Formats: sequence, C-alpha cells, structure tokens
Amino acid sequence: MGRTNFAAMNCSIARTLEVIGERWSLLIVRDAFYGVRRFDDFQRDLGIARNVLTDRLATLVEWGVFDRRQYEDRPPRFEYVLTEKGRELLPVILTMMRWGDRWESGGDRPVTLTHRACGHVAEPVVACSHCRGDLLWKELRTDPIPVTLPARG
Amino acid sequence: MGRTNFAAMNCSIARTLEVIGERWSLLIVRDAFYGVRRFDDFQRDLGIARNVLTDRLATLVEWGVFDRRQYEDRPPRFEYVLTEKGRELLPVILTMMRWGDRWESGGDRPVTLTHRACGHVAEPVVACSHCRGDLLWKELRTDPIPVTLPARG
Repeated sequence: MGRTNFAAMNCSIARTLEVIGERWSLLIVRDAFYGVRRFDDFQRDLGIARNVLTDRLATLVEWGVFDRRQYEDRPPRFEYVLTEKGRELLPVILTMMRWGDRWESGGDRPVTLTHRACGHVAEPVVACSHCRGDLLWKELRTDPIPVTLPARG
Repeated sequence: MGRTNFAAMNCSIARTLEVIGERWSLLIVRDAFYGVRRFDDFQRDLGIARNVLTDRLATLVEWGVFDRRQYEDRPPRFEYVLTEKGRELLPVILTMMRWGDRWESGGDRPVTLTHRACGHVAEPVVACSHCRGDLLWKELRTDPIPVTLPARG
C-alpha cells in the first residue's frame, strides 16, 4: 500500500504535514533558526543518519522551505538557508515547544524565551489576529465544516 | 539502525514530536476536535489503513493524548476522547492550518475560522503571553541556547 498523499486532501493541516510531517523535518528547521546551515553541522547536532538527512533536506528544498546555496567553488559546497516560507514555520515550532514544556518536560523547561520587545519571559499563546484574545476551540466557528466530518455537538 | 528516541533529547520540540510526530497523528487529533470518537469513523474519514490507525491510537492513548473509554458492553466497544493534554494540541493544529492556508492552499482556503468572542474572522497568530504582541524570532532571546548549537549571529 502506497503512502497517502496528504497534499491532495482538502485540509491545510494535512497539506502542512505533507511538507513537514516527517519526524526529523521540524528539528532540522529548528536548528536552522539557531543558525545551522551546513550538512555536517546539521548531521552532528542532530545525530541523524546521513542518508536520512540528505533525503529530508532534499524534500525541504523541493517544497521551498530551504534554499540550497553554493558557498564554495572548489570543492563545490552548499549551505541550506530558510526561505520566508521556512521562517514562517516559527509559530508551529513555538507552539510545539510550549506543549512539550508543559506536558513532556516535567517542569524542567530546557529553554526559556524572553520577548525583547516587552522584556518579559514569554509563553507563546495562539491569539486571534483581530482582538488578540486566546483562540479557544469552544469560541471558534469553522466554515465550512469539512464535508466528511460530523457536525460539532 | 533503530529509531531515534526524541523523548530523550533535551528539547521540548523533539519531545513533542516523539508523541505526535507521525504523519497521521495530528489528523486523528483534528478529527477528534470535530467530534469523531469511534475507530470506524476515524478510519472512514481519514482513509487510513486499519492497522496503522490501531497503532496510532494505541500510541496516543499510551502518551495520554486520548482516553479510551468503553461505551458498550456486548460486544465491548470503545471510543477515543481527547484528554486535557490532547485538547492543548489545538495551538499546534491552528498554526499548521494557518501555514498550510498561506503556503499550500493556493488562496483557496478550505476552512475559515470565526472567533465568536469578538465576531471576526480570525487568523491564528502566535503572541507573547505578557504583551500580546507577535512573537518574532528577532525579538526572542533563548536561554540557555542548546549547548550543541552555535551562538546566534
């Protein structure tokens, strides 16, 4: 049985998972935010098998998450730089970080975020672009409801 | 070579991916938000192979994302209900939805969200819990920087 093509589903969550839904992909993107650009640096930091890293980077370049740029002629060497599309994955990464902090890190948060714009330690919250209030499921109406799903109770 | 245990990494993003980093897992959680509870309904809606669904649900129950509850005695039948831990995945799902809307749905957004609290169509944005401003990478300081990563330039 072949791998299901999530990109063909009429759902933006599924389409996103088609691009970054492999286990390693978001850790590669995370490293890129911290300034990692070169294959060997990704490989060393992540402890990922080289063939898996080659495959993931090629996929992420193909989807436009990374640009592959030559930085040396002899021998030819390349680095991987996040595109705007890639940089816009930050909200996904921050919400995952917060969830992991809360549910999987046993109170021993590996990294704290300080929001330099206001000077405070920040929890990333998902807010409404209009009123800036928290987006809670019970306060969200979805239109249209995906046709194959039951109406919400 | 065995599968890398992301839960052992000192990173809340990796730990989150250990729980929900398989391709199907977040689509199962998405369906649960829409009210799907039963194996056959998940299976039909997602078009997922039954053995894969069995495996994913068992993993999500094991990690405490779903409760498995018996709703019928003869024959014994079970339903899967999001726990608080599972419901708190909403921000991850909303940020993925927004990214997919913007980058993979070609302007044809499958679902719009209306924030009933303010009455407006909402884009989910990731904001600072303190000042409610957008969390931009250039305005975030991370402490400590993960030791294996280079200092940010």
